[in-house]
Amino acid sequence: MYSPVMSRTAYKPLTEEDFDRAFPGSRKVYVPGPQGVRVPMREIALSGDEPPIQVYDSSGPRGFDAHVGLPGLRRDWIMSRGDVRETGRGRSLKAVGGKAVSQLHYARRGEITPEMEFIAVREGLAAEFVRAEVARGRAIIPANINHPELEPMIIGRNFLVKINANIGNSAVSSSITEEVDKLRWSTLWGADTVMDLSTGRHIHETREWVLRNSPVPIGTVPLYQALEKVDGRPEELTWEVYRDTLVEQAEQGVDYFTVHAGVLLRYIPMTARRMTGIVSRGGSIIAKWCLAHHQESFLYTHFREICEIMQAYDVSFSLGDGLRPGSIADANDEAQFAELRTQGELTKIAWEHDVQVMNEGPGHVPMHLIRENMEKQLEWCDEAPFYTLGPLTTDIAPGYDHITSAIGAAMIGWYGTAMLCYVTPKEHLGLPNRDDVKAGVIAYKVAAHAADLAKGHPGAQIWDDAISKARFEFRWEDQFNLALDPVTARAYHDETLPSDGAKVAHFCSMCGPKFCSMEITQQIRDFAQAQAVDVEAARAIGLADKAEEYRKSRQPDRVPELQSGQTED
Amino acid sequence: MYSPVMSRTAYKPLTEEDFDRAFPGSRKVYVPGPQGVRVPMREIALSGDEPPIQVYDSSGPRGFDAHVGLPGLRRDWIMSRGDVRETGRGRSLKAVGGKAVSQLHYARRGEITPEMEFIAVREGLAAEFVRAEVARGRAIIPANINHPELEPMIIGRNFLVKINANIGNSAVSSSITEEVDKLRWSTLWGADTVMDLSTGRHIHETREWVLRNSPVPIGTVPLYQALEKVDGRPEELTWEVYRDTLVEQAEQGVDYFTVHAGVLLRYIPMTARRMTGIVSRGGSIIAKWCLAHHQESFLYTHFREICEIMQAYDVSFSLGDGLRPGSIADANDEAQFAELRTQGELTKIAWEHDVQVMNEGPGHVPMHLIRENMEKQLEWCDEAPFYTLGPLTTDIAPGYDHITSAIGAAMIGWYGTAMLCYVTPKEHLGLPNRDDVKAGVIAYKVAAHAADLAKGHPGAQIWDDAISKARFEFRWEDQFNLALDPVTARAYHDETLPSDGAKVAHFCSMCGPKFCSMEITQQIRDFAQAQAVDVEAARAIGLADKAEEYRKSRQPDRVPELQSGQTED
Repeated sequence: MYSPVMSRTAYKPLTEEDFDRAFPGSRKVYVPGPQGVRVPMREIALSGDEPPIQVYDSSGPRGFDAHVGLPGLRRDWIMSRGDVRETGRGRSLKAVGGKAVSQLHYARRGEITPEMEFIAVREGLAAEFVRAEVARGRAIIPANINHPELEPMIIGRNFLVKINANIGNSAVSSSITEEVDKLRWSTLWGADTVMDLSTGRHIHETREWVLRNSPVPIGTVPLYQALEKVDGRPEELTWEVYRDTLVEQAEQGVDYFTVHAGVLLRYIPMTARRMTGIVSRGGSIIAKWCLAHHQESFLYTHFREICEIMQAYDVSFSLGDGLRPGSIADANDEAQFAELRTQGELTKIAWEHDVQVMNEGPGHVPMHLIRENMEKQLEWCDEAPFYTLGPLTTDIAPGYDHITSAIGAAMIGWYGTAMLCYVTPKEHLGLPNRDDVKAGVIAYKVAAHAADLAKGHPGAQIWDDAISKARFEFRWEDQFNLALDPVTARAYHDETLPSDGAKVAHFCSMCGPKFCSMEITQQIRDFAQAQAVDVEAARAIGLADKAEEYRKSRQPDRVPELQSGQTED
Repeated sequence: MYSPVMSRTAYKPLTEEDFDRAFPGSRKVYVPGPQGVRVPMREIALSGDEPPIQVYDSSGPRGFDAHVGLPGLRRDWIMSRGDVRETGRGRSLKAVGGKAVSQLHYARRGEITPEMEFIAVREGLAAEFVRAEVARGRAIIPANINHPELEPMIIGRNFLVKINANIGNSAVSSSITEEVDKLRWSTLWGADTVMDLSTGRHIHETREWVLRNSPVPIGTVPLYQALEKVDGRPEELTWEVYRDTLVEQAEQGVDYFTVHAGVLLRYIPMTARRMTGIVSRGGSIIAKWCLAHHQESFLYTHFREICEIMQAYDVSFSLGDGLRPGSIADANDEAQFAELRTQGELTKIAWEHDVQVMNEGPGHVPMHLIRENMEKQLEWCDEAPFYTLGPLTTDIAPGYDHITSAIGAAMIGWYGTAMLCYVTPKEHLGLPNRDDVKAGVIAYKVAAHAADLAKGHPGAQIWDDAISKARFEFRWEDQFNLALDPVTARAYHDETLPSDGAKVAHFCSMCGPKFCSMEITQQIRDFAQAQAVDVEAARAIGLADKAEEYRKSRQPDRVPELQSGQTED
């Protein structure tokens, strides 16, 4: 009946060509900054005299063998701080003498780390601003000292909105290559962090390879691995098993942990009357444990000990929302907000330990209830970064939940959410394949960028303006190359007008070659400029003459037939 | 260089099977109402004891030969009012003696027409409310007396948000069958109105067949056909040519006309400094005419005569926004809002003639500037329905503009826009094929429904609740059948779990058969209900006993491995 082999239908390893072909006209450049940082950007070459534009690039270094891993960009930075030592297991690093080695710790001391310099260049903002935001707890830099391969990035509402993609090994036979492929594929299209939700056999080894090949922060839900260790029985989970799992993953280099410590015993009955109960896997594991033991969970009762582990490696919290709504009907209910209040209390405890924190949020929320989520989170969690899953704004479109949720994600991103966890078209239905991952990432890049524009992030509109100008000037190649997905844009164009000549033509398939509204605008502009008068002035000096002049200056263009199905009128 | 033949690549006529297969588990039912109306709904059967649910259905009657057309549902209603006569050309109807025969006219007289009764049943609202909204000008019922095949619908912000899809014949060789196919395909998926943007040869004949087969209002831009009559030269357009075109189309049964009468001479220079000038085809035609003649357009100078024509057939205005922004950079600028003010003035003139009016809006607008569009339109156009194209919330994603614009469409729909003109993935790139039309319609059904939920439309959430409940109860077939696109939802599920057994399984591919957060919730619910105590009460009577009781009541489920790429944590 249950046939998980099918989840791996038609898996073909990605090739270098898949990556090479993704962004024609682009090349990776490195922008130098203070403290020796070199920040990767994707530079898009444009035609004619147009200057190239540089866009944020999360795809990481290319050309490294997955079995070797990426270079240790941050190793010297970490070692030179002189506050870590190698631990017994492997050659992992750990803070010496119970110190905190978090970016929050340094920021509070007034120190601008190379990580902060890197981010300042990456975001086009002052390094001191980066430091201040981290010190305030309004932004986090997930950067485990055991993840030197990381290209530092920041999550906070005064920075570019980030997106997360999920990967995870199949229960059956997912290979390491396949997981590294998923990681590289999602960062290629723009994932800013990746959560490794692997379980089952080889979970440790898989995560090791993911980390060693990841230029972006890796998040996990340690509860999943802990559950494996007790043979999948939630009731048998213990603090000791969980603690050991945290240490194991911290030593490997995981950058942030989802911890569902806000699921309290007294909140669980609040879900009984819900339309869809508890939909978070972590939340339901903890709920089951709490009900079986009739105690608060070890996540809550041992929270300060968790903080002590995390401060020694600079692992950030992603405080889970185990009671998030799983349907429109359950949005913004008592259970959800009760947990959010507890997330706020836990946030402040983490800060006492210099541990960086973000808070996870919903889920399924109709548009008119989205803002309340942001407002309460800002207030109760004292402006710690918010990290939401969508939210989906309606439940009636399974198969299109990347769209139902991109709507909510864009809105909550505008309101101040710092990172958006993607949703793929397969949500609620099955396991996403490569195309689904790409569809999810791109829908979320759209949402995040729309939010950046709406928030007025300095520089966000440069990209839109570049593509709009290319469109207006019929620079087709530039328009494709500036697209989030150049190959798809070009393919759609070529379905109608495949010839190379059409790539330089001053028209498109919507209006055809002889009549074009954009070309008429160009005529208006030329006319206004050439005459050095506008139409108002023309009125004053004599309409008839000007009209004649204009008429003579233009060929009497024939407007051809329009094409089917066009949208513009 | 220009090869329009390619726009018709791989056209295969739709078959009855394409329609039959779209909504398994659904059947068309007719709900009776006063004045003999019978209102079509799609009834979705559910399994077990779940009652079926009825959803709005715009797909029209099935089984009629395209060469015969649909039955004349409204013919008796129209004739029985005794205010129309047949005109010379064909057997078209026209108001007798210069009267208005518009739904606005009847509504203002206090008359509840069969059209209004039909809509009242369709929307689940009182007929008197429908009448009052039409009388106030806050809603329109586009319903030409020469389009008796129409199933009446309403566009207004106190009703369900509607969506429009565009069709139009190819310049080259589009057949009548192909156009009727496009019409039927877009209404199958939920288009509430269709604009026929046909041009070129056979434009009159094509429109005739579209109208005779359309259960939804048909809109046109008469300027396009007028331009054909002057061999495609905008400067040679005249009032007389345009007027004759209006009469021709009104006699055929077109339900609403896009008229770009708000493009005034003095606004044109305001576009010269724009990033993307004038992107509306109609707007640029009028701009070219105005510049050539240095006069206000005949649309503006003859506006009252246009109203007199339209009142005699009950054609509604869709006052065009010829100066809408074509890029994020141009949003909410002087030119755009100058035209909107004029649209408001024209709205009131149309109302003087008992002509129904809606106003077209943008276009390309970043999220934070969307609300201003709605607020100004409500104020300046005195609450006439707003009808927007998207708006697109970023320009960086050609190939995904159904998503960039669904975000803006959902938001402006929530704010009060009554109808959303769809955008397909091919926007800015090429001519949409059948898949693109479907993708555009579904993205816009999502946006419209999300807006209905956010506005609190009575009954909107019933659909979400039904699918959420089915999801929670693992009624997979019900979940598929309740989806906006059942076949896609099922196909995505079956990629991972293809067997029939999986359709009744109490798990999904995300968590596997033995562990499931939804199942745990069911256990919580069962426990809470069976014990008739909640956990708080349990605390009071002794935690240990209750814990033991709970533990014994559950099998120690093994939690299996998770699957790759999952989103929920």
